[in-house]
Order: sequence, then C-alpha cells, then structure tokens
Amino acid sequence: MIENNPLLQNIIRLALEEDLGSGDLTTDAIIDSKKMGKAFLVAQEELVLAGLPIFKKVFLEMSRKIEFDEYFDEGDLVPAGKKICLIKGQLLSILKAERTALNFLQRISGIATLTRKYVKKVESYGVRILDTRKTAPGLRWIDKYAVRIGGGFNHRFGLFDGILIKDNHIVAAGSITGAIDLVRKGNPNNLKIEVEVEDLAGAEEALQAGADIILLDNMTIPQVKKVVQVINGRVMLEASGGITLDTVEDVAKTGVDSISIGALTHSASAANFSLEISPDASNSFE
Amino acid sequence: MIENNPLLQNIIRLALEEDLGSGDLTTDAIIDSKKMGKAFLVAQEELVLAGLPIFKKVFLEMSRKIEFDEYFDEGDLVPAGKKICLIKGQLLSILKAERTALNFLQRISGIATLTRKYVKKVESYGVRILDTRKTAPGLRWIDKYAVRIGGGFNHRFGLFDGILIKDNHIVAAGSITGAIDLVRKGNPNNLKIEVEVEDLAGAEEALQAGADIILLDNMTIPQVKKVVQVINGRVMLEASGGITLDTVEDVAKTGVDSISIGALTHSASAANFSLEISPDASNSFE
Amino acid sequence: MIENNPLLQNIIRLALEEDLGSGDLTTDAIIDSKKMGKAFLVAQEELVLAGLPIFKKVFLEMSRKIEFDEYFDEGDLVPAGKKICLIKGQLLSILKAERTALNFLQRISGIATLTRKYVKKVESYGVRILDTRKTAPGLRWIDKYAVRIGGGFNHRFGLFDGILIKDNHIVAAGSITGAIDLVRKGNPNNLKIEVEVEDLAGAEEALQAGADIILLDNMTIPQVKKVVQVINGRVMLEASGGITLDTVEDVAKTGVDSISIGALTHSASAANFSLEISPDASNSFE
Amino acid sequence: MIENNPLLQNIIRLALEEDLGSGDLTTDAIIDSKKMGKAFLVAQEELVLAGLPIFKKVFLEMSRKIEFDEYFDEGDLVPAGKKICLIKGQLLSILKAERTALNFLQRISGIATLTRKYVKKVESYGVRILDTRKTAPGLRWIDKYAVRIGGGFNHRFGLFDGILIKDNHIVAAGSITGAIDLVRKGNPNNLKIEVEVEDLAGAEEALQAGADIILLDNMTIPQVKKVVQVINGRVMLEASGGITLDTVEDVAKTGVDSISIGALTHSASAANFSLEISPDASNSFE
Amino acid sequence: MIENNPLLQNIIRLALEEDLGSGDLTTDAIIDSKKMGKAFLVAQEELVLAGLPIFKKVFLEMSRKIEFDEYFDEGDLVPAGKKICLIKGQLLSILKAERTALNFLQRISGIATLTRKYVKKVESYGVRILDTRKTAPGLRWIDKYAVRIGGGFNHRFGLFDGILIKDNHIVAAGSITGAIDLVRKGNPNNLKIEVEVEDLAGAEEALQAGADIILLDNMTIPQVKKVVQVINGRVMLEASGGITLDTVEDVAKTGVDSISIGALTHSASAANFSLEISPDASNSFE
Amino acid sequence: MIENNPLLQNIIRLALEEDLGSGDLTTDAIIDSKKMGKAFLVAQEELVLAGLPIFKKVFLEMSRKIEFDEYFDEGDLVPAGKKICLIKGQLLSILKAERTALNFLQRISGIATLTRKYVKKVESYGVRILDTRKTAPGLRWIDKYAVRIGGGFNHRFGLFDGILIKDNHIVAAGSITGAIDLVRKGNPNNLKIEVEVEDLAGAEEALQAGADIILLDNMTIPQVKKVVQVINGRVMLEASGGITLDTVEDVAKTGVDSISIGALTHSASAANFSLEISPDASNSFE
Repeated sequence: MIENNPLLQNIIRLALEEDLGSGDLTTDAIIDSKKMGKAFLVAQEELVLAGLPIFKKVFLEMSRKIEFDEYFDEGDLVPAGKKICLIKGQLLSILKAERTALNFLQRISGIATLTRKYVKKVESYGVRILDTRKTAPGLRWIDKYAVRIGGGFNHRFGLFDGILIKDNHIVAAGSITGAIDLVRKGNPNNLKIEVEVEDLAGAEEALQAGADIILLDNMTIPQVKKVVQVINGRVMLEASGGITLDTVEDVAKTGVDSISIGALTHSASAANFSLEISPDASNSFE
Repeated sequence: MIENNPLLQNIIRLALEEDLGSGDLTTDAIIDSKKMGKAFLVAQEELVLAGLPIFKKVFLEMSRKIEFDEYFDEGDLVPAGKKICLIKGQLLSILKAERTALNFLQRISGIATLTRKYVKKVESYGVRILDTRKTAPGLRWIDKYAVRIGGGFNHRFGLFDGILIKDNHIVAAGSITGAIDLVRKGNPNNLKIEVEVEDLAGAEEALQAGADIILLDNMTIPQVKKVVQVINGRVMLEASGGITLDTVEDVAKTGVDSISIGALTHSASAANFSLEISPDASNSFE
Repeated sequence: MIENNPLLQNIIRLALEEDLGSGDLTTDAIIDSKKMGKAFLVAQEELVLAGLPIFKKVFLEMSRKIEFDEYFDEGDLVPAGKKICLIKGQLLSILKAERTALNFLQRISGIATLTRKYVKKVESYGVRILDTRKTAPGLRWIDKYAVRIGGGFNHRFGLFDGILIKDNHIVAAGSITGAIDLVRKGNPNNLKIEVEVEDLAGAEEALQAGADIILLDNMTIPQVKKVVQVINGRVMLEASGGITLDTVEDVAKTGVDSISIGALTHSASAANFSLEISPDASNSFE
Repeated sequence: MIENNPLLQNIIRLALEEDLGSGDLTTDAIIDSKKMGKAFLVAQEELVLAGLPIFKKVFLEMSRKIEFDEYFDEGDLVPAGKKICLIKGQLLSILKAERTALNFLQRISGIATLTRKYVKKVESYGVRILDTRKTAPGLRWIDKYAVRIGGGFNHRFGLFDGILIKDNHIVAAGSITGAIDLVRKGNPNNLKIEVEVEDLAGAEEALQAGADIILLDNMTIPQVKKVVQVINGRVMLEASGGITLDTVEDVAKTGVDSISIGALTHSASAANFSLEISPDASNSFE
Repeated sequence: MIENNPLLQNIIRLALEEDLGSGDLTTDAIIDSKKMGKAFLVAQEELVLAGLPIFKKVFLEMSRKIEFDEYFDEGDLVPAGKKICLIKGQLLSILKAERTALNFLQRISGIATLTRKYVKKVESYGVRILDTRKTAPGLRWIDKYAVRIGGGFNHRFGLFDGILIKDNHIVAAGSITGAIDLVRKGNPNNLKIEVEVEDLAGAEEALQAGADIILLDNMTIPQVKKVVQVINGRVMLEASGGITLDTVEDVAKTGVDSISIGALTHSASAANFSLEISPDASNSFE
Repeated sequence: MIENNPLLQNIIRLALEEDLGSGDLTTDAIIDSKKMGKAFLVAQEELVLAGLPIFKKVFLEMSRKIEFDEYFDEGDLVPAGKKICLIKGQLLSILKAERTALNFLQRISGIATLTRKYVKKVESYGVRILDTRKTAPGLRWIDKYAVRIGGGFNHRFGLFDGILIKDNHIVAAGSITGAIDLVRKGNPNNLKIEVEVEDLAGAEEALQAGADIILLDNMTIPQVKKVVQVINGRVMLEASGGITLDTVEDVAKTGVDSISIGALTHSASAANFSLEISPDASNSFE
C-alpha cells in the first residue's frame, strides 16, 4: 500500500520538478496536446518488479486521465523481454513523465532484485536478510520498501526508531552493561535493545545485561559459529560486515537469525527496463 | 564550490531529518553532551574522493564548532588505507551525523570513481564521457556534480535546459527536418539542438536541417564509424546505448566527440569508506 | 539534546511566521532597534520546567546575540514565584519572540508537570507511565519530549515504528494468533509485537501466539489483577483506557508493567509563566 | 468554510505524515486493501461539535472515495452518547486516518466546548468572549477557528494584523500618548489602535490620545467598574488577566465590551469522542 | 526591521535557488574561490532607496563574511550617480549573488520611488496614499513594505486581516445594512468595517449602518466632493479607481482621507541601479 | 502547456495562502456556500492575453467544479472591451480566488503585451527579442513564459543553464581567450558559450577563441554596425543595454541577431482587466 503513503507525492513532485523545471523544451515545441499515446513497459533482463505503484503515480501526477493495463504484479519475478504493463493517455504527458517514472522503477527494482538473490541463497536456513541505514539521501523509505518487496526485512529505519549500541557508546558508558542500563531508562516501550559486539565475551556480557538482539560485527565464520553455540537461542543474533553473495550462505549456515547487508541499498545496479512509446491514433485527448 | 550552493542545505537537512527524526535514542541516552571526539575518515579501497565539502557540511549542520584537517583534496585519487581527513568536535554531534555524512560521500565518490574509469579508457582519443538523466530521484544535481569531479561532462540537466529530439518527436513532427524547425521557433538562445538518429540517413538529414549535435543511439561500431566518416566534423557526434567499460574504448576509436553512459549514475557501487571515531580526552565541549 | 534536533528549526520558524507574519506593527513603530533589554522568566505556579532549550532557541532565531543566564535546569521542579532565567539582548527581538517562546514553554512544561504527577503516584510500584498518539497535530515529537522530561516513557511514535494489533485487525485476521502471524512476516527486526485484548482469554491467546506486550484495554481493576496473575511475568502488560490521577495508583497496584494515559498530551493545562521585560540602559545594540 | 482554506491541506498532510511516516506496519500487514469498512463517530460526553470538516478531510486525504452521512452540524451541541456521523469506505484508509482525524477533532471541539461555557456565562450582558495569541505552535488559525465555532470572537491573529500597545512600548515611547502617536504613523488603514493600561489614569490618557480600544489588564472588579463608568462608552473596553469560569460573570457585569481568555486555547481539555469501526461486508473496494 | 522578519530568508533562498540552481557555470569555472572583490552600488537615476537590508541579506546568504559600508539609509532620496554602498568580500560570492540582490532592490526601490511621487503630490492636503492587494504573486509583504518606505500606508494585507464589503457582498446580503450586520457578527475585535459604495446614497446608508470606512469607487471628482460634504468627517472616506499622478492632487483636494492606488505595486518601473564590481588585490579569502 | 508544469501548483498555492491566510472575513460572513455565480473576464485595454491557463487554475484550486467558456486563446491580441472568458461555479470560490487570479493574469499579460510591442518593431529585420534574468524574485519561470507568449525568446534561465562571460570573468582569467578556455573545460555539452564585449577588438578575440555568441553591451549604433560588418555572420551577435521601444528598430537595422531587453520583465505595466461577477440564480452548488 505504498501508493497511499502521504510522503509519496512529495518525492514524486520533487523528482518531476527536477526533470521538468520550467518546461520540456522539446516536447512542448513538437507534440500536440490533443495527441494520444500508448507505451509498453518491458523488462530488458530478468528482474524482480518493484515500484510499479510509484511508476504509475508519476504518470498520474502529470495527467489524471492516464490508464494502465498490468500483466505482472508488484514483487513478481519478470523474465527478460516480457511486457509488464501498458500505459495509455495523453502522449505529451507520457513523454514528460517517462524518465522520472523509469528512474524510480529501475532503482527500486534493482534493489529488490539484488535482495531476492541474497534471500534465495539463505532461504533454506530460516535466516532473515536485513537492510541497513546505508541508503541514498532522502530516499530511505523507498529504498527500504524495495528491500521488503525483494523478500528482505527492514532493520531500524533511523536513529529514532531503534536502539543499537555500538563501540563508541560502550566506551563512553564504560561497559556493555553500563550502556544497556542507560538506554533502558529512556527506551520507548516498543523497541528491542540491540548491541554490537566484536567477540564472544561481548556477546555473553550483552546477553547477561538483557540485550534483545546481538549484532556480531565483522567476525569470522568460526567466531560466529562459536557465539551461536554459546548463546544457544537465548537472544537473537545478527551478523554483518562485508558479507557478499559469495559468502552469505556460509554465514547463514552458522545459525544466526539474520544477516544485514549494506550493499542492498548502496550498491545495487539499476534494473534494466525500456518504455516503448507510440502515438495512438485511435483516440484524441480532450 | 558546491558548498555554497543554496540547494545544498535543503538536501542535507532532508537526509538528517530522515535519519534522526525525533532523536537518536541510543546516543542521547549514553553520550554526555560535553564530551569531545575525533574521527578519521579512511578510504577502504582506492577511490576518487568526491563529496568531501558535502560530508563536512553535514557535520557542521549538527554543530557549528566541528573542525577538520584535510589530507586530500576533492577529486584526488586516494589509495586504499589512507586517512582522508580528521574531524574534531562534540562527540555527540559526530556520532549523530556519521551515517548521513557517509551516505552522501560513498554515493558521490562511487559515481566519481566509476566515471574516472571510463574517462581513463578514452583519454587518449579526446572523447568526452557524458552523464544522462538516469539519476536517483531528487539527487540529480549531486549525481551530476559527482560525474564532473570524476572527469566527466554533464549532458543536459533536465528537459528544461537542453533540446533532444527523439524518435517520438520525429514521428509526431513527420520528419527530422520538421522537428528541428519546430523546436527552433521556441528554442532559448543559449541551447544547441541535438537530434537522436538511428542510422546514417538520419544523421545526414539532421546535419542538413541544422542540428548542432547528433546522438547515435544503439548503433554498431561499424555504423558509428561510417557516420563519423560522412559527417566529417561538421557537427558534434555523440554515441550512446549499452556502452560498458569493456566496449567504451572501441567506441571512442570511431572518432565520435562524446559518449554518454547511464550507468555512471544509476549503477555505480558505493565507494568504501570507514569513519574511525574515538573520544578526545584533551578537551571539553562548552 | 532536543536543541540540535534538525526538526526543531522548522517548527520554531513556522510558529514565528504565524505570529510575526509581515511584521510586528506595534513594536516596529515604537522600539528603537538599538535599544537593549532584559527579561526574567518567572514561574507563576509550581511546575516541572520543560522546553527551556526550545524557549531559548526561539529568541536566538530572532537575534544571534541574545544571551541567557539560567537558574534552573530542564526537568527541575520549580517553585511558584522563582526566577528561571535571565534573557539579555536587543529589546526589539525579545518583544517579538516573547509570545512564541512562551507558547512552546507553557505547553511543554504543562505536559511535563502533569506527567510528573502521574509518575509520582505510581513510583513505588515500578510502573512506567506511557504516552499515546493523542497529540496535537504537527507537535507529536515535542509533546512526547515533554512526557520524557516529566518522567514518563514514550509509547510508539506513530504507525510506522511500532506494532499494535487492535480489535479490527483481529477481526480481519480471524483470530489473535492469525493477526500476530501476519505482522511477524513483515515486522522490522527491532520492534516488539503488542496486542490489544479485552479479556483474559485474549491475553492468554496473545501470550501463546508470541506477543511481546499485551495491552489491557478498558478492563476493570479486578480483571486486570486476574490477567497479571495468570500471565505471571511471561510478557509485558500495559493498562489503558480512562485512567485518571484518582485511579492510576489502583491500576499500578495490580502489577502491570506500564499504564498509558492519553490525557498527558491532549488535556494538560498550560503551565503558568510570566516574562518580565525591561529596557536595559547599560548597553546598546550594535 | 474552513474546508476550502488553502492552508488546510498542509497541516493535514503534516499530521498524517507524522503518524504514518513510512507506513502503518500493523494495518498494512493484516488488512486486505479490497475490504470495505464503516465507522460511527460518537460523542462520549456532551460537547460542542467543531472541526467536523477537517475530520472529514483527513479521511479524504487518504482515499477520495470515502463517504459520510452526518447527523449533526458544525457548531451543534451534541449530547453524550449520540452518533455524529457515519463514515464508509476502504477499511484500510479508515484505520490509517483514524487517530489523526480524531486528534484534530478532539482538540477543536475541546476548545469550542470550553468557549461555549464562557459565552453562556456572559450572554445576557452583551459581552464578547475573545481569544488570545496563547495558542499551540503552528495551530493558531485552527485554534482560533475553534473559538469562533464556540461562539467567541477573535482578537488579533498575530503581531502583524493588530495594534496592541503594552507597558514596554509605553516605557520606550515615554508615554501612552507618545506611543499612540508613533503607531498611528505606520498604522494600516483598517486597524484599530488598542492600548493596555493598568489603571484609570492610563485609560483616560489613552482615550485622550485617540485609542480605539483600551485593554484593562489584571485590574480588580471595582477598578474595572470605575473605568467603565468614567469612559462611559466613548471607546471599547476589554478586560483580561486570570479570568476564569467562576469569575467571568462578575467581570461581564462591570459593563466592559469584551473579555479575553488565554485558557480557551492553551488549557482546554480534549473533547471525548470514540470511533466505532467495523468491516462492511456489503461491498468491496475496487 | 524587515531584516529580522522570519519570512525573509525563505524568499531570498527561493530567489537564489531560482538563479543559481545546480551552480554558476561561468563563475565557478573562472573565478578562484580565494579571490577577494569589492563592489559599489550606484544609483543610475534619482530614486528612493528601499530594500537595502534585503539586498545585503542576499549577499550574506552566499557568504557570512561579506561586509558593507553604507553611504545612504533606507528611505533616502538618492541623487542620480551617487554611490549607495560598498560591498567587500569573496569575489565569487559577490558575482553569484549580484543579479538576485539587484532584482530585489530594483523592484522595491521602484515601488518606493513611485509611491513617493504620489505622496508628494498630496502632502499638503493631509491625505494618505494607500496600496492595494494588486501585488506580484508571492511578493505581497515585500511590495507593501516598499510602499511604506515610499511614504504610503498599507491597506489590508489580504482577505484575512481586513473587512471590505463590495458590490457582490451587498447584492448577496440584500442591502448595505444587511451586509454590515452579517460581518459584524464574526468580525475580529481589532478590525474596522469598510464598505465600497458607488454613490452618495450608498455612503449615507453605510454611515447609518455603522461602517468605519467608506470606499468611494470610481466616482467623479464632483461626486466625491458631494459625499465628503455630506459625510462631514463622521467616518473615514477613501477614494479609488483609475487615479493617476495627473489626477491624484484633484482627488486629494476633495477632502477624502485616503486614496488607494493599484499602480504602486502592479505597474512601477524598476529603479535603475548598477553594481560596479572589481577584484580587490589587498586581501585574500581564507 | 504551462498548466501541467509541476511547479505551477506551488506558486498558485503560495499566492492564495498569501491572500486568504486564515480565511476571507467578508465573504465567509456574507455569502452562502450554496450560491452559484458567474463572472466575465473583460479586457479593459488592447492587450496580449497571456496567463489564462494559470488564471483558470487559481479558480480550480479553490473548487474543482468551476467551469469556463473561453472566447480567446492564450497569445491572442484582445481588443479593449472584449469578453475573454466566462467563469461559472460556486460564488464563494469565485470571490475568494478573484484577486489572486487577476494578479497573475495582469502581470503575465502585461509582460506579453510589452514584449509584443518590441517584437512588432523589429519583425521585418529577422531579429529576436530576448529577455534577461531581471525578473521578479521567485517568478522567473512565469515571467519568461510571458515573454514567449509575447513572441520573444528566452535568454538563459539562470546561472546554471547558460554560459555568459562578463568583464569580471575576463579580468580574472587574464583575457577573453583565457576565460573561454576555462569555461570550455566544464561546459555541459548542450550549451553555447556567450561572451560580453565592449568593443570590436573584444568581439574579434571572442570569435577567434571560439565563442558561439557575442554580446555587445552598451555600444553605440555605429559601433554595433561595425562589429556586425566585421564578424559577418560567423557567430551570433546580441545587442543589449538601455534599448527602448524608441531605439530598438535602429538597433535591429544594424543586423544583429538578437536584442535583449531587461524592461520586458522588470518594468512592464500590468495589463488592465476587469472581472464582472454576478450571482447565478439558475443553479445551486451541491
């Protein structure tokens, strides 16, 4: 239900204004505003379709009368070469919205497609793939939506809706236990306390002090295995740090509950779509 | 001089608000506001440093009293493992701004680093590497700044500051010549007219009709060569469409003036930085 | 550390623009811009001081050169008649910012003072007083800050950072268990699952299905007691619904972990302050 | 006609964004977007209904297709237990908008209900009840709308649309007469000049100097009576300062023209409403 | 004191963003950021200087370190050819802010200069020159500030801070008296009631019904004279409608209290300034 | 197609909020919201109609149900006294939007009408009339739209979308050639390089160095003639500086390609329209 999020119109308008500014010099000079057009959105590679409701809303922001026929649903794995949807309406509006709509779609589907690859690698181990706060400035909630469509789970959104005690916090508080005690005093009721540790001793202290989740940062596979064994399900364990498509399955095998991957949102390649536009002689825009 | 761009504060505040929201639950609970800190920004791989003025401005937005010592300049190629700058000031502010500052820097340097790779491939041919409008929504002017730092050149910013006649425009106008005539009537004085063509005949018609730049879209290398030979320097030629680091040199050899690459801005991986923060006992924040 | 929250400047400027609009007709006509002034902020009743950093920031938004001497700290219980701080600077700026600064302070301190009263009633029972989402439109993060200063704890901020399964969700999902299963699938890692129930059977089903917190809505004291006894500490229990200063202690005695009170933010009276301004002949504003 | 005020959409969207942020985790996970729902708005106590057009507009901002049947009009005194309106439409949208819509309604009706109480006390004396600038930051125009619905009158909106000469202005200008002369020089044509005085002598000087309204601040009842007698209708008289529901009638009896009450907007309790939502099986949202 | 109006930064930033967008291509390419510059602002014709504080603030928005020496004050009549102020600071910032700063100054001084001409024509008759709501969209408060500096007075700012009953209101209410009665019911305390009439009968009815100001719209000079004679000072009279510099003195002679002129803000020519910039070798920008 | 520009709603809402603020005191008190009205827009002088789509959109922003019958098209020369369009809908909305809608229309048509006069003077010489950056703050894109409707052409929009090397740039770079070389290095592909020169020698150096356009600033007619003769069509020539309706034809005769005129946007008088509103008894607003 991202399409009725009240934030969505803001980012779409920002993006349209960025592209259109004082007007589309080429299209406004050439295209008759009465002309109708249609366009097929086509996958140029196998991809996870994500962002289609946003893609559609970009066109609707230009003209309320644009219509869509959809052949795939949000979250579908679309084979290369397949038509995803048909767009019909004022040709001028389709041309003006094209690039902005595709810029959303290719980024969101790119993140979802990469996420799906990680998810597939670990699905037999019952491990969750998590995102991070390493997102494009101003686009975090869209980047994190993409991860969900790809089958991943969201880590905290920002500093305000999750507790994560890191090394500097521990140094400042004097100990892991001291840090946990301090945050508990001001901790909103609904949040779990997560602590980042570097070794088994840290994990044990965090468990003792009442952490809900322990983040194992940049540990080796054998180290992670050892922690999993000792903690033995008493709190949730998350692994993170330089984990790639090549290594994620080995990490999953250790028995951690979740694995967080910054690359999902900061290094996904755009998914490859084309939009095949043509005039539509059968109608005229009133 | 991106640091005195009036748009910069807006996007920095948007990004900080996205991350900090109603406050940093962990840091506010643990870190004494009087504590000072310092942090080294370190390159974790060889990269083109880009976005340092923005990175600094994110910290300054949190606290006017943060200071910097810089060991590299914007645009430098930084070897892996090198310290780039030292940040000193209120520890609380450094911790709160950390992720947002890095999110800008890793994206901008990632784009600059990828751009530099393309530029290096073609530098002996006198060819310009151009960006496109395939940028992250809301971040176009920052993405395009990154391309310039990487040694690339900016294509038009949006639909409002450049003329680019594409296939649909030509169909609607009836011919390349017709389309060029229409745009010339409303064309701002300072803009060149660019036409996208698919074959030699199109290029020749565009030349005849007075185009300033001809964009050769998705042509094969032999086709491009032929067009270069026939046009013979009478207008500028640009190649585009699926050109990669593997193929860009061959395209450059054809003699085109410029090559535009969408991947610079839609598919660059984040550059890998770390920020090594530590308390600074030598001082106290008043 | 609310004073370096990036959202703060927005709401302060909104409030100043609302009051000042195109200018202060009276003050601009009468007061010489070179004149200095001073003002004492005085408590007109016993109150919990909350919002002082915001109060100060309103003046600083009008003039960077205003200075403050503070005699009490944020969160202090201030006796009636006591001076809280001294403000010195351009008289014109003090007069223009006066009402806006007081409007923030009286609301925030009013909420904190009421919260403190609830907290005092239950402090010997180890029970947390929680706020709700029943806040003034656009002021939620400030209202919730006030609750924290008063000694209360924050419930979820909004719909996005907390799971709370209510009766309609349960009806739609078919059962408490069904609802919990559905939310778990998309639940961000850092959030606890809370379920609102109306009777003991609901509480038991929620416990069984893996809820982290159970909200006992509008139950009688004996009902709550019974649930506390049966659940016996296996998950956290929260009471809510029509609880007042007269009844809160009895609810606390049942042994619940927390009590949420909408009135903290929707029905607190403003705290009563005065600002005693006078010209300051000893200096002149340059 | 508050519903077509161009400012209204801004504050509604701000409030919705504050509550919904990146999405409603619970509802999005559980409620099928095709499900229809209905809800009755019910008064839980006797109250003056105010803000119904805003309440409705919050739901419409979530979904254009929500419909309403209204049983009471804006400004009506609604008995406890009565249904006020029926809301029908997409269940998902009703659930997401519920809290935000109620937060507006309970505040606005709370202010209107309190205002009505003051108005009733003085209605036989021909005295106007006025509001002040002591409103919630960012909500002034809504708070002042509530006062009008309650039967009160608006004092100046801000510093920009009314002249009010206070003690500091008089000190700076040297005298009441001096202050009035200064403001008259820059006074917009449509505004009356109001002067705050502390005693009879001040009132007489203000009358002499041409004030249109005299504000009697914190005077005793006998003092006010005396001023009324002496001024004898030659200018309007307003009383203010610590006037409560217990004392307002006595003040009205003195013969002043109006009485201003800060508590209307800074200390009104929220009016008590409930929203009884249920799925609506008779229909499906397309 | 327009320089500390909280609205000012918004409009300055909007204007700078409009001009600078993603950067100053020419200046950024050529001017060394370390170079200092100075510039003299010079009057190219006799003009009323208005907007100097805004002009300065535009430069300060680009660089906090720019300094000014001023030779004239806001509101001064500056002879042609005179230097008005000296600007010193970073050359790059001066060049980037130049056009935006001048665009404000030339508009504001243009309006003030035209206003002064009207004021001079009527000054011996004790008549006020008023502005109207016929201002540039988004610039009303700045246009109205310019009128005040020129010696004019402000009519109501907008529909919200003044009552003006026009012909359509009278038709709808059935009569002038009916309309006045209706507005009095909701009229904020601080506002006068103004009625627009077309003839003597209308003026007499308005007087009877308790209007505070009567607007004589598009009447002939003899008609106006007659009304002045009959009303005889019992309420204020304002003339408007097509009054020019050639006719304003005759209108003033009729004895009306004020004359409103739309042309002040909708048809003033820009005042003619130049900015003579030169590099300043004596210093270097750190 | 200015009506579907994504920026348009922003400026219309800004202007409506400026005028309506917290509400229309007069109209809301008098006009029944069920009443229908109609209004004729009439030209009070011969004018070029420009801004009609914006004028209409202002009304539609107040009420989606307002309808229009248009008797003239955007850009038409309308004789004095002619009806331009009929507006039908809720009377209340028509009255509230009236002034804001007219403020846009009178400014835009004023600029277009003045532009048309310049264009007519030079049309037999094949010379383009250009605008400048001397526009009202925040309204540049609307001012420049008006110029296009009047038959003029747009010079660069801002500093970001055009290269214009001025005297200070040349001094800083050491020479015209040096300056051109510097900007070429960072020049976006789509932009022409324009250089401002003061004499023939400058023009010759600019030609040699590869300028695309040479701006002849403040030269005498004989000087311009000489430059035209020597340059002989090898680059485009633009004249500017103090050119008026009296002198523009002589400048055009010199053979320059274009003439830029600041007065188009900074000193055009408002076009004179009236809006004749009347109640419409034939219908009722539901």
